[in-house]
Amino acid sequence: MAGPAAGRQLIGRTGPGRAALDTLATVTASGGSGTASEAVERALRAVAAHEPVVHAWTHLDPERARREAREIDARAVGSPSAAGSPSAAGSPSATGSPSATGPRAGEDLPLRGLVLGVKDVFDTADQPTECGTPIYTGRRPSADAAAVALLRAAGATCLGKTVTAELAFLTPGPTTNPHRPTHTPGGSSMGSAAAVATGMADIALGTQTAGSVIRPASFCGVYGFKPTFGSVSVAGVKLFAPSLDTVGWFARTPAALDRVRVALTGRPAGMPLASAPVIGVLRTEEWQSCAPESRRAVEDLAGSLTAHGARVVEVPVPDYLDGLAAVQPLVMVYEAVRTLVWEERMHRDRLSEGLRAALDRGHATDPAEYDRVQARRREATARLDGLFDTVDVLLTPAVVGEAPAGLDTTGDPRFARLWTMLGTPSAVVPVATGPTGLPVGAQLVGRVGDDARLLAVVAWLAERGIVPEPRLARP
Amino acid sequence: MAGPAAGRQLIGRTGPGRAALDTLATVTASGGSGTASEAVERALRAVAAHEPVVHAWTHLDPERARREAREIDARAVGSPSAAGSPSAAGSPSATGSPSATGPRAGEDLPLRGLVLGVKDVFDTADQPTECGTPIYTGRRPSADAAAVALLRAAGATCLGKTVTAELAFLTPGPTTNPHRPTHTPGGSSMGSAAAVATGMADIALGTQTAGSVIRPASFCGVYGFKPTFGSVSVAGVKLFAPSLDTVGWFARTPAALDRVRVALTGRPAGMPLASAPVIGVLRTEEWQSCAPESRRAVEDLAGSLTAHGARVVEVPVPDYLDGLAAVQPLVMVYEAVRTLVWEERMHRDRLSEGLRAALDRGHATDPAEYDRVQARRREATARLDGLFDTVDVLLTPAVVGEAPAGLDTTGDPRFARLWTMLGTPSAVVPVATGPTGLPVGAQLVGRVGDDARLLAVVAWLAERGIVPEPRLARP
Repeated sequence: MAGPAAGRQLIGRTGPGRAALDTLATVTASGGSGTASEAVERALRAVAAHEPVVHAWTHLDPERARREAREIDARAVGSPSAAGSPSAAGSPSATGSPSATGPRAGEDLPLRGLVLGVKDVFDTADQPTECGTPIYTGRRPSADAAAVALLRAAGATCLGKTVTAELAFLTPGPTTNPHRPTHTPGGSSMGSAAAVATGMADIALGTQTAGSVIRPASFCGVYGFKPTFGSVSVAGVKLFAPSLDTVGWFARTPAALDRVRVALTGRPAGMPLASAPVIGVLRTEEWQSCAPESRRAVEDLAGSLTAHGARVVEVPVPDYLDGLAAVQPLVMVYEAVRTLVWEERMHRDRLSEGLRAALDRGHATDPAEYDRVQARRREATARLDGLFDTVDVLLTPAVVGEAPAGLDTTGDPRFARLWTMLGTPSAVVPVATGPTGLPVGAQLVGRVGDDARLLAVVAWLAERGIVPEPRLARP
Repeated sequence: MAGPAAGRQLIGRTGPGRAALDTLATVTASGGSGTASEAVERALRAVAAHEPVVHAWTHLDPERARREAREIDARAVGSPSAAGSPSAAGSPSATGSPSATGPRAGEDLPLRGLVLGVKDVFDTADQPTECGTPIYTGRRPSADAAAVALLRAAGATCLGKTVTAELAFLTPGPTTNPHRPTHTPGGSSMGSAAAVATGMADIALGTQTAGSVIRPASFCGVYGFKPTFGSVSVAGVKLFAPSLDTVGWFARTPAALDRVRVALTGRPAGMPLASAPVIGVLRTEEWQSCAPESRRAVEDLAGSLTAHGARVVEVPVPDYLDGLAAVQPLVMVYEAVRTLVWEERMHRDRLSEGLRAALDRGHATDPAEYDRVQARRREATARLDGLFDTVDVLLTPAVVGEAPAGLDTTGDPRFARLWTMLGTPSAVVPVATGPTGLPVGAQLVGRVGDDARLLAVVAWLAERGIVPEPRLARP
């Protein structure tokens, strides 16, 4: 397999100068202030400072991004000639409808000023989409994936494409952990999580089939969100296991997480909680495999919640969840061999050994066993719904512990598998620090379809400082 | 919108000579005999005879198809040099494993000798994929859709790409009904159904989001099958409404329908029924909108079944199905506006008026209403399952009546909507003839996941002559 960097458009590799570092201090944790052009310049300064070590991007053309930002700013003020004019850009109209009698009204662009990174398994019409495999080197799709088009329509500026593990599975790309370059950032949405952690992007798209959003969010110390299965269209996304594949995203604030949800789903913005939430702590059967820092992330968060007036209850693990996480890989490989058919048939020798072995397991899986697992899944999803009659969200580990050393693995997705199987919305809050100082998240899980409430709980935590503002990684 | 024929590669337009007509008489209803090369030549003779009037193909390059057939025949006998050798091709090895000590063993190619038509919403790496819209004129995907790759791996020869309604919705392409060119073949999988009805293909892929397999199968007088939702990967298929989009297919025999299912799912071939089936006649709330011929198709089939020893029971319409078919369009347009985002945003002026209006309805749909419908859908699917404890399959209309006159509509999908919503496997059997002599099908519906039993019932009907062998359309 050719090096994952082979096809990337290289950007400035000079180390960060003093000026760049100073400017980074002005990057707000939230992003999203000012014009699209200002936001892109801010992001490009972060790129100059971090990218030589972090390797989050597989394609990044600064001039193309600047052009896109100018177009967005022009849309906001309703006149291309006003592009980049700070005064005009500061007062976008909310109507978005052109006027026949006066200057063209600006569009309502709720994501203007947010810089977007796009995992390289989402099609983009104006940039290559290579899916982390040499099979697709130089591939140019005809159209943007639906999620990309929705975020651009809402005014986000796509800075570039971010590194993905091979075909969004396990074999890593070159991205390093932005907090320590000898450690993995997690995967498969590794470039997106790292870009957000460094301020190279304010928001970034990922996908999750096992734990590909939850794990890198936790390892990189940012917020991550996987919405209810099926609530965001996968059109234009490279599929791996269609009954599991879910579009997700990263941000440095709960507010940005929710703004992306609104743009992707067309649903109303979340309302603040009317009262302190009820949290159910769920120590799943994998609890024993948790490192101390991940247990502590859950237990300390539960303690802080209680201190702030939330009701925290222990939820016994329901029997219908027994062993369900452990059979997620069966579903994944069974579907993968019927989804990556062309790739395996035409280019098996260009797939990584790990992916080939996974496909072999898929070929060997009995369809009757798959059917039994899928039936259990449906039953568990239906029964879990009742559990949310008594709690607002569940609190459970996100990861085994802090990011492991080395760049040859993306870490263990075991704590995310269950919730991908159940289709629940699930969020990482960057709440703790491990024994060597790397971030550790905790996972909150909501009722299927009640994504807004889950994100309202996340916002409630952040407003009270229970979850600290994420540290922007230092170059 | 440019004419749908604008981008097609034209094939021989000379009328069918006497020789072609004579040869057509040798086309078996089943197809699938002989080598791939023989099958392609047979199909190309049917193309010469029918295509000038039927317009089923949007791309067909005979030389490319012949080359593919030769490659398949070479794979079957295990040596490229033996390609096209009838004696060697007649004895393919079933092992598929290369031998180091003797001549290379041939692959097991269960679909060899079947000519495949592929609806032009499935990606193909070696042929354009234009999705029935000028937006994608000349589009060349990088890879085959999973379903296409699976059928090719099993030895089917892809003859070309078949006409689809615009983006698999309602605005028709140029295909005419192979039994009467002034009438619609149905849609959106119009070219695939017409190709199979004329012997231009033995099997053909389609998709169904409302009634895009069931309706054209009925109008063209062939077997059509929509499997359990999610059982065939949609990777590489142009999506429209992801919670509804289902890969389906057409054939002239129940055996071919089942062989395609086996190739696409990797599941065992269907076993013959051990005893006469129990059939539940379901006169859904749409029954009153049935034309006499469609009611007769159901009632005559029920009568024949009884005469052949099947138990036929009337199934009262369960209350949980009330009004569910009527809200299918709401789900469809709600999801379409979040799926065809790039197309609407960049090329709204190149979409048909009908599709633009549908997208406008989608934008106006309240997410809360969509959620209520989706919750009803899940509940109905779960409760319907119990109904199959007492019947093997349900018998219900496929269409309002025979194909309507005119080529500006693809007909009414109302009798398919319910089963697309419920994710059940569903088959059309070409059982009757309408008042003007056009075909009329009846629809059989099985339990979710029990596709093999449904197709076994279809085979049982055909073996007893209850469903006559489909008439091959005459040029």
